Amino acid sequence: MKLLEDRILSEGKVRPGGILKVDSFLNHQLDPQLLYEMACELKRLYEGAGVNKILTIEASGIAIASFVGYVFGCPVVFAKKSKTKNISDELYSVQVESFTHGNTNTVVVSKEYLGAQDRVLIVDDFLATGAALVGLKALVEQAGGTVVGVGIAIEKAFQGGGNLLRAQGLRVESLARIASMSDDSLRFC
Amino acid sequence: MKLLEDRILSEGKVRPGGILKVDSFLNHQLDPQLLYEMACELKRLYEGAGVNKILTIEASGIAIASFVGYVFGCPVVFAKKSKTKNISDELYSVQVESFTHGNTNTVVVSKEYLGAQDRVLIVDDFLATGAALVGLKALVEQAGGTVVGVGIAIEKAFQGGGNLLRAQGLRVESLARIASMSDDSLRFC
Repeated sequence: MKLLEDRILSEGKVRPGGILKVDSFLNHQLDPQLLYEMACELKRLYEGAGVNKILTIEASGIAIASFVGYVFGCPVVFAKKSKTKNISDELYSVQVESFTHGNTNTVVVSKEYLGAQDRVLIVDDFLATGAALVGLKALVEQAGGTVVGVGIAIEKAFQGGGNLLRAQGLRVESLARIASMSDDSLRFC
Repeated sequence: MKLLEDRILSEGKVRPGGILKVDSFLNHQLDPQLLYEMACELKRLYEGAGVNKILTIEASGIAIASFVGYVFGCPVVFAKKSKTKNISDELYSVQVESFTHGNTNTVVVSKEYLGAQDRVLIVDDFLATGAALVGLKALVEQAGGTVVGVGIAIEKAFQGGGNLLRAQGLRVESLARIASMSDDSLRFC
């Protein structure tokens, strides 16, 4: 999606360790008009796929997922990072490693908000190793629901998570795919 | 706002300790169409006030704030809860007590995304004691910006935070104001 690629080129900042900071429009400050356009593009890509629920993970996935839910006309569920490992019977839960923060979180969704009737589009701002998406997919499967596919703003393709998921037969659509990046260059796939 | 009040009456669950759970449309599962309508109502209330930035706090404020930014056509900044107390020179920071979680967070905003030119509408899902809003207002003031007002989805008026802020001259608009609630009754102001 050219609109997003242009914005990454003009405002993204590459940091050591494969970190891309896009705090000016996606992660700390948000550009809601851009988020809406991105949601429309995901709607176009998944048109006719019968999506009836959007699933994301707090915190920075919430904004884009909300607009995706708006254009699809369906509810959005955000999985929560739990502070406790004592999970109640009312929750689906999974362990997810965070690439950015270097720790492991227990991620939960209430059983009230995911079920066998759900055809889920998983949405997130970033795709790197894919650990968060594998976790969200596991939550949908615990609920007996169907993962229709994944919609991502920025895929760091050089980290391999996206192609790993595609090789498992999961449909993954990313609006910008970064092939490589360094201090002085950033190249899209 | 009748649409929101009706939804609170039909789906809200009162829990011990003054907790209102609205997880089915505002805090865990989100109804994006309702969020959009709420954003339009805040736009109507603050029309002509020169708002050019929306400020909220992660995580559950992000969804409604994103739609408010969309209808105002301006950027949204979400303050982050910091794990460390070592704050860099690049951040505005403030201490905020959490009523829900019973702890204190260091809340930060990058100096890049708040400044003296900003006319800020602070947006959040809940207003109880007002501690989060006092913190967000302090961040805007550190930046030399102007707080135009506050836009809230649900004010628990019986906890007094809203009227405390109004008494200080701050404009606070809440789309639903709860006068009292118990297991078997919930009354709006």
